[in-house]
Amino acid sequence: MSTHKQLTIGLFGFGVVGEGLYKVLKQTPSLKASIKKVCIRDPEKIRNAPAGLFTSNREELLGDPEINVIVEVINDSDAAFEIVQTALLNGKHVVSASKKMIAEHLPELLELQNHTGRSFLYESAACASIPLIRNLEEYYDNDLLHSIKAIVNGSTNYILTKIFDEGLDFKQALLQAQQAGFAESDPILDVEGFDAVNKWAFLLTHAYGILEKTTSILFNGIQNIQAEDAILAASRKQEIRLIAQAQKLKNGKVAAFVLPQFVKKEDHLAFVKNEYNGVVIESGFADKQFFYGKGAGSFPTASAVLSDIAALRYDYKYEYKKLFHHQPHELADDYYLRVYLSFDDLTQVPRENFEWIEEWHANQDRKWLIGVIHYRELKNHDWWKTGNTSLILTADPVVEDVETRKLKKKSLELAGV
Amino acid sequence: MSTHKQLTIGLFGFGVVGEGLYKVLKQTPSLKASIKKVCIRDPEKIRNAPAGLFTSNREELLGDPEINVIVEVINDSDAAFEIVQTALLNGKHVVSASKKMIAEHLPELLELQNHTGRSFLYESAACASIPLIRNLEEYYDNDLLHSIKAIVNGSTNYILTKIFDEGLDFKQALLQAQQAGFAESDPILDVEGFDAVNKWAFLLTHAYGILEKTTSILFNGIQNIQAEDAILAASRKQEIRLIAQAQKLKNGKVAAFVLPQFVKKEDHLAFVKNEYNGVVIESGFADKQFFYGKGAGSFPTASAVLSDIAALRYDYKYEYKKLFHHQPHELADDYYLRVYLSFDDLTQVPRENFEWIEEWHANQDRKWLIGVIHYRELKNHDWWKTGNTSLILTADPVVEDVETRKLKKKSLELAGV
Repeated sequence: MSTHKQLTIGLFGFGVVGEGLYKVLKQTPSLKASIKKVCIRDPEKIRNAPAGLFTSNREELLGDPEINVIVEVINDSDAAFEIVQTALLNGKHVVSASKKMIAEHLPELLELQNHTGRSFLYESAACASIPLIRNLEEYYDNDLLHSIKAIVNGSTNYILTKIFDEGLDFKQALLQAQQAGFAESDPILDVEGFDAVNKWAFLLTHAYGILEKTTSILFNGIQNIQAEDAILAASRKQEIRLIAQAQKLKNGKVAAFVLPQFVKKEDHLAFVKNEYNGVVIESGFADKQFFYGKGAGSFPTASAVLSDIAALRYDYKYEYKKLFHHQPHELADDYYLRVYLSFDDLTQVPRENFEWIEEWHANQDRKWLIGVIHYRELKNHDWWKTGNTSLILTADPVVEDVETRKLKKKSLELAGV
Repeated sequence: MSTHKQLTIGLFGFGVVGEGLYKVLKQTPSLKASIKKVCIRDPEKIRNAPAGLFTSNREELLGDPEINVIVEVINDSDAAFEIVQTALLNGKHVVSASKKMIAEHLPELLELQNHTGRSFLYESAACASIPLIRNLEEYYDNDLLHSIKAIVNGSTNYILTKIFDEGLDFKQALLQAQQAGFAESDPILDVEGFDAVNKWAFLLTHAYGILEKTTSILFNGIQNIQAEDAILAASRKQEIRLIAQAQKLKNGKVAAFVLPQFVKKEDHLAFVKNEYNGVVIESGFADKQFFYGKGAGSFPTASAVLSDIAALRYDYKYEYKKLFHHQPHELADDYYLRVYLSFDDLTQVPRENFEWIEEWHANQDRKWLIGVIHYRELKNHDWWKTGNTSLILTADPVVEDVETRKLKKKSLELAGV
């Protein structure tokens, strides 16, 4: 049928993903895409590719009229933004894997796409091999997306799996993850939830047309989870996962957050183990759908970059349909969350700020409660992230019905608090 | 960004799916798609929609220049083909859910698409709510698809789940499936594998560019599975699923079949229970991916039809990339399968036609063996489908290495046969 244009690629970055892409492209000649030049920071480093391919001068790529596609897989998000910006303005299509850069600059990137008419694709930036962005754009093209729950960070999921399946404590598990190459030597970005919330910020744009900075999103990582939390979960036939989620409320706004959560052993997301990612989408008519695959690593990420390159052959663009063709949704900030909280010291917990408390166990060394708390109490304060306090969402966390606030006093009394 | 055209739909069929679509469209005004006329067979039947919407005269839809999209969700595959053919020739885009019709007529339908330049979309015809066809077309756009394994028939999966989770026998389970609305009153199409192989025929086109009739594909259903097979599976921590699968062999050809198979309890496809469908795709770089969702029913099917309608707004077409832009693959017919076979009577089993036998249990009332047999022995003969003989693939069924044939005699001796 139609014929497709030849793609000539300028590649920025030759780390794990860049080199993976180089190998993948060599094995897929049918794509008619070839790398003309690779821009790297350190020209002295020995690479597994011909020396003539490399340069450390950006202009050799960005200024070359023969190069019609820039692929950018570097770690420095400021440099990445400059590269993407220049490439689009120079009339090139761009494929990027830089989640942090996209989360930080999406409004400007939307303007650049609109202004230049070029494609800017980044399927690999979230859940790598799972075609999530494309499916949110193309398939759930209606108002009926009830909720999305996703495991978007493989490092933390690897650590949590080791804690549950092998009984390791957090520090041992983190060490194993680092040794296996699934966590960075500086793991804060993963472990404290920054990576997950970066991805969640732009996934919310594709899912709901919500265009917000990560600072507007309630999030935390798994750094405070204690051995006792895992033991309690196991005793209730549950596990703990770091879950990015969004749920449409009755008023049409969207509750969205990234927090550790208890999941039942038979839940779809409990099936997601080790470095894998998974996404559960609930929609009005399709019911529950579950996508599962590798969320990181050289080849899975390169394969997602490859699928973007393939899509460029027929001029594919994200249309950001939920943002531009529909009434975009807003982030909700007036709802309640049912949370589990464990702590060493009673004075760490402002009990009066809970709407009500459903369980209260203060006799052990490690104390814990289950209670309902307003979203803003968590969003605007840090007490629940500090010290040894560990906050984990219950399996069904969103509480919409404000009338039940009336139960607050009564339940506190019943609980003997 | 771009503006999209108004879609005016002529709908054929107002059964479970047609009425579901009518309701779904009413709830998605953002789609700018409206049903102008519905063609039904029985004008006397009372419908949950205004009488003026209905006609039993095809021409009122096919001949109406204002109608630019025909959606066809009827059961009669011959009538469906006539409708689709006329609609395309009259310059209309077509969305269809008729898997049998598509499986039977795909070569002609490809010509019609090519000749008329119109879109013919049928995401709902396989795995309903799972966006499988679109992902095979768009995302796995390379030569690296190692294998696909899929549960594509919800009725048989419902029956198998009941057998394993509730200990029912086949007949009881079938009855429950019928009562729950997950199996037809005449269940042969589902139970004997015809529905699954219909879907598999055109999924093979999107996955591998293989364009073959269902008669070229080795298949069977679950009608011969015995209580003893299920008990044996459970004792080995396995379950049984009806699995459509394709696997690329070393020679580049593709082994493809639809047969019951043992799956380990921790396998992705064992996670797929009741009326759900699931697909596991293994590719060179993305590793394993798993898609899961509702494969049948009014709203899940209607939601897939809806996604096709949404795609028409921006003139989406299947490109059949694996068929037209790549070197298409061929069906393999020279390989071996490792199968479990249970039977009442030794004389039913032509033991000499096996390459070799690995297990042999002939002392019980119900006898069984595990052995390796050539594909063509199964494809060209029926003895393994007849009587009470039950054939189930083992967990890792494809055997490529013909050298091991040499072991045949020896292993038969060792087995004491």
